[in-house]
Amino acid sequence: MLVVMKAQATAEEIQAVCDHIVQLGFRPHPLPGAQRTAIGITGNQGEVNRGNLESLSGVAEVIRVSKAYKLASRDVREEDTVIRFSNGASIGGRDLAVIAGPCSIESREQAFAIAEQVAAAGAQFFRGGAYKPRTSPYAFQGLGLEGLKILSEVREKFGMRIVTEALDTETLDLVAEWADVIQIGARNMQNFSLLRKAGRLRKPVLIKRGMSATLEEFLMAAEYVMSEGNYEVILCERGVRTFSDHARNTLDLSIVPALKHVSHLPILVDPSHGTGRRDSVLPMARAGIAAGADGLIVEVHNHPEVAVSDGPQSLYPAQFATMMNEIEQIAPIVGRNLARGVAASVAVKE
Amino acid sequence: MLVVMKAQATAEEIQAVCDHIVQLGFRPHPLPGAQRTAIGITGNQGEVNRGNLESLSGVAEVIRVSKAYKLASRDVREEDTVIRFSNGASIGGRDLAVIAGPCSIESREQAFAIAEQVAAAGAQFFRGGAYKPRTSPYAFQGLGLEGLKILSEVREKFGMRIVTEALDTETLDLVAEWADVIQIGARNMQNFSLLRKAGRLRKPVLIKRGMSATLEEFLMAAEYVMSEGNYEVILCERGVRTFSDHARNTLDLSIVPALKHVSHLPILVDPSHGTGRRDSVLPMARAGIAAGADGLIVEVHNHPEVAVSDGPQSLYPAQFATMMNEIEQIAPIVGRNLARGVAASVAVKE
Amino acid sequence: MLVVMKAQATAEEIQAVCDHIVQLGFRPHPLPGAQRTAIGITGNQGEVNRGNLESLSGVAEVIRVSKAYKLASRDVREEDTVIRFSNGASIGGRDLAVIAGPCSIESREQAFAIAEQVAAAGAQFFRGGAYKPRTSPYAFQGLGLEGLKILSEVREKFGMRIVTEALDTETLDLVAEWADVIQIGARNMQNFSLLRKAGRLRKPVLIKRGMSATLEEFLMAAEYVMSEGNYEVILCERGVRTFSDHARNTLDLSIVPALKHVSHLPILVDPSHGTGRRDSVLPMARAGIAAGADGLIVEVHNHPEVAVSDGPQSLYPAQFATMMNEIEQIAPIVGRNLARGVAASVAVKE
Amino acid sequence: MLVVMKAQATAEEIQAVCDHIVQLGFRPHPLPGAQRTAIGITGNQGEVNRGNLESLSGVAEVIRVSKAYKLASRDVREEDTVIRFSNGASIGGRDLAVIAGPCSIESREQAFAIAEQVAAAGAQFFRGGAYKPRTSPYAFQGLGLEGLKILSEVREKFGMRIVTEALDTETLDLVAEWADVIQIGARNMQNFSLLRKAGRLRKPVLIKRGMSATLEEFLMAAEYVMSEGNYEVILCERGVRTFSDHARNTLDLSIVPALKHVSHLPILVDPSHGTGRRDSVLPMARAGIAAGADGLIVEVHNHPEVAVSDGPQSLYPAQFATMMNEIEQIAPIVGRNLARGVAASVAVKE
Repeated sequence: MLVVMKAQATAEEIQAVCDHIVQLGFRPHPLPGAQRTAIGITGNQGEVNRGNLESLSGVAEVIRVSKAYKLASRDVREEDTVIRFSNGASIGGRDLAVIAGPCSIESREQAFAIAEQVAAAGAQFFRGGAYKPRTSPYAFQGLGLEGLKILSEVREKFGMRIVTEALDTETLDLVAEWADVIQIGARNMQNFSLLRKAGRLRKPVLIKRGMSATLEEFLMAAEYVMSEGNYEVILCERGVRTFSDHARNTLDLSIVPALKHVSHLPILVDPSHGTGRRDSVLPMARAGIAAGADGLIVEVHNHPEVAVSDGPQSLYPAQFATMMNEIEQIAPIVGRNLARGVAASVAVKE
Repeated sequence: MLVVMKAQATAEEIQAVCDHIVQLGFRPHPLPGAQRTAIGITGNQGEVNRGNLESLSGVAEVIRVSKAYKLASRDVREEDTVIRFSNGASIGGRDLAVIAGPCSIESREQAFAIAEQVAAAGAQFFRGGAYKPRTSPYAFQGLGLEGLKILSEVREKFGMRIVTEALDTETLDLVAEWADVIQIGARNMQNFSLLRKAGRLRKPVLIKRGMSATLEEFLMAAEYVMSEGNYEVILCERGVRTFSDHARNTLDLSIVPALKHVSHLPILVDPSHGTGRRDSVLPMARAGIAAGADGLIVEVHNHPEVAVSDGPQSLYPAQFATMMNEIEQIAPIVGRNLARGVAASVAVKE
Repeated sequence: MLVVMKAQATAEEIQAVCDHIVQLGFRPHPLPGAQRTAIGITGNQGEVNRGNLESLSGVAEVIRVSKAYKLASRDVREEDTVIRFSNGASIGGRDLAVIAGPCSIESREQAFAIAEQVAAAGAQFFRGGAYKPRTSPYAFQGLGLEGLKILSEVREKFGMRIVTEALDTETLDLVAEWADVIQIGARNMQNFSLLRKAGRLRKPVLIKRGMSATLEEFLMAAEYVMSEGNYEVILCERGVRTFSDHARNTLDLSIVPALKHVSHLPILVDPSHGTGRRDSVLPMARAGIAAGADGLIVEVHNHPEVAVSDGPQSLYPAQFATMMNEIEQIAPIVGRNLARGVAASVAVKE
Repeated sequence: MLVVMKAQATAEEIQAVCDHIVQLGFRPHPLPGAQRTAIGITGNQGEVNRGNLESLSGVAEVIRVSKAYKLASRDVREEDTVIRFSNGASIGGRDLAVIAGPCSIESREQAFAIAEQVAAAGAQFFRGGAYKPRTSPYAFQGLGLEGLKILSEVREKFGMRIVTEALDTETLDLVAEWADVIQIGARNMQNFSLLRKAGRLRKPVLIKRGMSATLEEFLMAAEYVMSEGNYEVILCERGVRTFSDHARNTLDLSIVPALKHVSHLPILVDPSHGTGRRDSVLPMARAGIAAGADGLIVEVHNHPEVAVSDGPQSLYPAQFATMMNEIEQIAPIVGRNLARGVAASVAVKE
């Protein structure tokens, strides 16, 4: 259910509607828009009686949201969600967001070497795993807290915002403390306890599509986070699992326009996991932007041949710079702009 | 790496080898077999030096295990794993194991009504969700602790062992306290933190195959549990996600013989989630047993039409009784036996 | 549209209804049933006016068939279709049908050696490819007419009915001349010209499910054959293509009960192509029968290690004999019977 | 096997090598390149003795081609295949090829109305089905010869080259007589008789990827055509079948760079069938070009809401013009150029 307030509704009227919703045993989600505020209503105690709500002061109309996802739906919020960061970067607006870095943080030296190069090429976000989900219990599991600290130093030095994965509810708070965007991995897309807990934080959450998740399940994962009051959710297509064997996964780019149609949330594309092949990353990065994605998350490594994980799909820094140039040219064709980070100009000046 | 002890090796010799492995920075997993003990070696500090190990007293040979899964492999343990329960039931041996009950525990009355009927039909294990993984945050999430207590009463009254899902690390200990078998759901098959923590318990763990998990990934999930020292792992095929639309999932029964070939762990089949259609549950239950599965987990409900979840795929109690009779007849053809629980005979007598 | 005739309708009345349908520009398909005759109406000139039909003499009612498949639907024919052969064998009735033989006919010697053994084990149908659909234009394409003649000799000598594939419209008539059942392969399941032409023959047609065909598309392939007046269609599940990599294909056994629900056509299972692994053929053959299939088609070779095609999935003759014994025991549990061929008893006597 | 001739080899030397190959019982495929001619050797009589070949006059070296596909491989031909047409259009070179038109030719009026608009927007190729592969035998099957004649008139009037589907070997010659490019549909990708017969023609063949075809199977379909001597093969990605349900098919764009890596054949993208949704066609058309495809094949209809087939995925003519403008801008970023047809400028002038 969705309460649409009148354009001239006051803050007091909005608050009064929220209070009323709480009294009814539901949860109100005030969502300010360009024209007027909408208030989503969630809860699992059945249907709200709409009659009472419609008679409250400042209420324009009460709408039933028929889709399973409510807060993630365009029915509830017509304008695109834009998430803004302190370094001037944003995700979901006109500016394309590019997140780059290694699969795993292996050492301070490795992280800094890669960070310097991706920052110079214009990346505004740095990625790197401190906690790694590995198929084998015997594989490298990440540097943990030490990795988070290295990421924090990267932010200090290069001005990029940090995106890193939270593997479980135990380490979520720690990750939230050090990162700017908390990544929920594909394997955890339906780890509902983790999603709920991430919903109680006030940090943006990037959710990767599960390996066999439908569009609706993907949005329901976002809904889990949003239902707890955290509306800064970023979606990310990273390839799904099919019979097709020429790539590690099948990058399902057509979910980009399909999501834009029904949801206001930003959607990024990960051509690295999406293909698993370095020689396909550039073509699919271009394709992702051309399809209308809000940005990219790509793996870059200075020495992919010795990377502890995902070497074969990591770009060399020079390839990443080429990628940035190519998507910069595609951007205006789809009404976008590639905003390069501060470090980029500095690096160029040096 | 695997250390195979001589048939006549003493407990002291086995202990000495384990101590030596710990000193090398690895973890020993002594696995007693019918003929002799094997000691699996796990860890992620690279390769063990086999020379030293071969010279230890009581050691017959040291074998490299080439597969990604070690402790779950038949290379490490030739005989089938059999998990025995205090009510005389077992999983993985000659006796077929049948786990039956509703999707969710809805109330004491509902649970008891169903329990009475599945016990009467011979089920030795009762299933029912106290914590439910739901695609929507607004759907019924289970009765929680109250559900666990109801399950415990069912055990008291009907003598069946209890199988129920642990959704997250937060509730795992609680579930382990009340249940006899801890279920890890398909969505959590690669929730590595949950698997590891379940590996530190000393309760059997039933892992459902992820919706797009390969055989190797499935066994690696088991390996996560086993690598922590809990060797009582039960696998469960519950259907995978494909283009095929005549059923909710595609029940991949051929994984049963494929798993038996490479692993010693028991494998059950879930024809309820595997098809999502009541009218297909019986045929696929028979097919699962005929394919060589160690048992079944099936949803049964006394009023499926009003069930809060999975109604369309739940058997009526009478259908469950028919199923038991049919698989009882198939059992000897595949060298098995359907052992019915104590309650079965009692029920029949009444 | 379906015209259901009264139980006591005369042959003249049935003929009059058919003539009337032809006059309307449609095609009548009289389908005699146990109680009464139904007349299916097909054509693509839009809807038939039912009013006129209902007033014809002997007509009980006129029913709209809402599914895309009409003649293949149980709405049109309630009882199972049973196809009977001159050697006393049948497909679709109480007796299970077993079709066995090599992937390709390689030589007279090879065919006879295998035929002798599968006949001795009780097979009533012999399979073997004279025309082979091969992924590579450079691979062995079959013996062609020579292969058909060898198959014909096998029929003479061992009394089994012959099942062999027609690859294209050019060779269809030739295959129809020599074979008892014309197989349409998975790659040709939507070769509509071939299906139509097979529909004009009066020989049973066995259609293998396409690698990614839905249940509806599968039945529409049957409908193509039936719409031309050939109602003796046999369906065959042979595995579909998914991400799952432990077997060559994913044998989708749950299509068996799903098909039985909506169609009267017989459905066989091919555990050889369905798994691609000899060690999985027996378990999945048993599973197929337990799921309710009307029979099996299996590859058997006397020297699989030197077979020109499909060696790794071909059973040794002794394994085939074991399979026959096992499914014979499962048969009565699912209300079936394994009728062994004449050659079986002869062979046993010798 | 591949014979690479010296750069200065004469036509007589090339002919002598070809004659020698024929004498050995194989088939020679002379493939002129920018630098020198290579001669592919195909046949299924086992391996060629390379010794004799290496000693022939003009031979530089003899190379074993290890992949299953030979003539389609870049090992055999390093430069991209470019197919040139009499109207100045080409497929596979620097110029992007755009094929546009309705799913089915419904009438002369419909075809001309659409042709005029796509020609005005710059399409150099017109598509439209005269023979339609339909899942149902009762659906519209195309206008047949009448449709081919209408297509021919479209060519006369608007100067576009004609692409239309050949459904079977019976109608192939007729289609080849009237069309400029013969399309083999996805359902026929492994109709080997049709492929072979198309290989004996001297008209370009456009092969659509089968719904569950791997990259290797796709190239083997091309190999069937090429092995008969027709080297003008165009590949087309049109979406594969997966669990994903937000689009009709899953457009697997990453096959574009993967194919470019191993084959010299042109690859087009079909965003209409690839998504089945009008609102996704433009984004995926842009994405296809950005991924490196050699062109597009798109469905355009002047009245999609009344189209006899594929209405929901057909672009309105104005949308098609927008698409042309957008891909024209992307073209130079990927080193390509959008060459518009003659009719385009005429139309613009009017």
